[in-house]
Amino acid sequence: MATIFNNRDPDFFIQGILNGDIVLLSRAITLVESNNEKHQLVAQKIIEGIAGAPRNSFRLGITGVPGVGKSTFIESFGKEVIGQGHKLAVLAIDPSSAKSKGSILGDKTRMEELSVQKNVFIRPSPSNGTLGGVTKTTYETILLCEAAGFDFIIVETVGVGQSEVAVGKITDFFLLLMLAGAGDELQGIKRGIMEMADALVITKADGENLEKAKVARSEYAHAMHLLQGSESGWTARTTLSSSLNNYGISEVYSMINEYNTLVTANGYFLLKRREQQIDLFLSAVNEQLTNKFYSDKVIKEKIKSIKNLNADQNIQPFLLAKELVNLFFKK
Amino acid sequence: MATIFNNRDPDFFIQGILNGDIVLLSRAITLVESNNEKHQLVAQKIIEGIAGAPRNSFRLGITGVPGVGKSTFIESFGKEVIGQGHKLAVLAIDPSSAKSKGSILGDKTRMEELSVQKNVFIRPSPSNGTLGGVTKTTYETILLCEAAGFDFIIVETVGVGQSEVAVGKITDFFLLLMLAGAGDELQGIKRGIMEMADALVITKADGENLEKAKVARSEYAHAMHLLQGSESGWTARTTLSSSLNNYGISEVYSMINEYNTLVTANGYFLLKRREQQIDLFLSAVNEQLTNKFYSDKVIKEKIKSIKNLNADQNIQPFLLAKELVNLFFKK
Repeated sequence: MATIFNNRDPDFFIQGILNGDIVLLSRAITLVESNNEKHQLVAQKIIEGIAGAPRNSFRLGITGVPGVGKSTFIESFGKEVIGQGHKLAVLAIDPSSAKSKGSILGDKTRMEELSVQKNVFIRPSPSNGTLGGVTKTTYETILLCEAAGFDFIIVETVGVGQSEVAVGKITDFFLLLMLAGAGDELQGIKRGIMEMADALVITKADGENLEKAKVARSEYAHAMHLLQGSESGWTARTTLSSSLNNYGISEVYSMINEYNTLVTANGYFLLKRREQQIDLFLSAVNEQLTNKFYSDKVIKEKIKSIKNLNADQNIQPFLLAKELVNLFFKK
Repeated sequence: MATIFNNRDPDFFIQGILNGDIVLLSRAITLVESNNEKHQLVAQKIIEGIAGAPRNSFRLGITGVPGVGKSTFIESFGKEVIGQGHKLAVLAIDPSSAKSKGSILGDKTRMEELSVQKNVFIRPSPSNGTLGGVTKTTYETILLCEAAGFDFIIVETVGVGQSEVAVGKITDFFLLLMLAGAGDELQGIKRGIMEMADALVITKADGENLEKAKVARSEYAHAMHLLQGSESGWTARTTLSSSLNNYGISEVYSMINEYNTLVTANGYFLLKRREQQIDLFLSAVNEQLTNKFYSDKVIKEKIKSIKNLNADQNIQPFLLAKELVNLFFKK
């Protein structure tokens, strides 16, 4: 594999991707995901090369706990999206894949109907790195997909970890899928994720579940109302859906369309993307500075000894920080 | 003022503070708050000198929007605390003071009854710095108060800014004061603050307000329930209080006592403090590294030009970060 990639001129990838070549798009994503330094260099040049490509896309983040029916929802919703004339890319971040070898990657039957459609590109991403690493990889994958002509990007993640925060930083709209039932399901959703949501969709609202779903909807709508307040001018919504009956699916598309119209008109769409870019830049600077610091041998040893202290031994956090930063820059 | 401080040997402060000298405690806090480099050096030595002092204290963070009756609550609650045999320090962070010359500092009638009590030390802190700066100053002020024998520390802040996040990082228990009425009061509380709360107290639950307060209590209890989930083993509570009728005040003390007993027994008390210390250390390292980076002249110029770009011009956040960090370390 390494030889195929190393022998390629970045321009070969760039031209291919801009022409919508899915095979080269897929290989470029693999380069972006690779930890190999040579791959990284090629990936960087490809990303630079596609920088000028138009980005009139919509980026949708979708999250929900396992069992909420995320794949089924995306399958139904994805068909609606391509039916509306979009080219759709579905990127799945699987925080469990590094440990369990991939619940998303492993499930071959996933989105079977959607994956065979024209104008659909589905790509699971193993998230075997830091949060910053996941953000970078996924963000650059979005850019590559957009350069290849995909104008509707879904970034999917399992709502049990920190990757939702990353997704919130790189998408235009954040959709939280919830199960009907007692309010306790929210326990499975980490603090803060509900607050990020631009809309909450209660799935499996069919059959015996429908009444429960309606109750849950009003409960969540109330909780969401208490939490809201956004500069976008958008008020978060709570809706019902059933992938079984194809109920509430096209409504989600209409809702997102409505959001898009609103924020395009009031300028929030571009403003949010710019804020995201600045935010990503600052985080990346931060991560790189701290990486250099914490990978220093002497610093490493010092920190190891601090973390080994008993809980009842006091640390002077600010003095210690000053001491170590000074030590780092003296060398 | 500078001469008084500069001529003092740090040991003079250290001994005085350890002997419970309030005047020297107060001056040491002024040194900690000072931006003067010489003061900072003395302050640092004092903090180092008191590092070994016992810290069997309880640190309580209290926040709420203006008008919630924070001062009145703390006045009533403070009397309960000293009645229970504690030495009480009340530290007030006022995020508005830098701009408005201090709504807290300006109000001389504030906590009049409490301030004349023995065993009470009240100290407003102008928060005229960064969030990290506020955290550092307040944290070191807590250490100084504890070294002077204060075993119950209240850190008070106005629930409209980011300083609550800082308070959450340096206290053992976070109390959110709320007004009765429609659920919309929550709009005044920034996202995430409610989630930080270990307890929510609805104030002014008296007279005509009592029924409204009871309704609000059940509404908030529900919202809190949806948000909770903590490794402390503690479930957040919602209670009513009236400083007018001295109703529900001693119950707050009992509740905090109950929390303290629980987390002391299960080890979470020390664990949380250790996690806070590590967290403060990492944040401080972070802040110092980024300060060095962003105060670099060349970097400053580059970033200025990036921020001046139009919203529709794309930035490559990760490439840019790499480029600038490399530039910084080459010099």
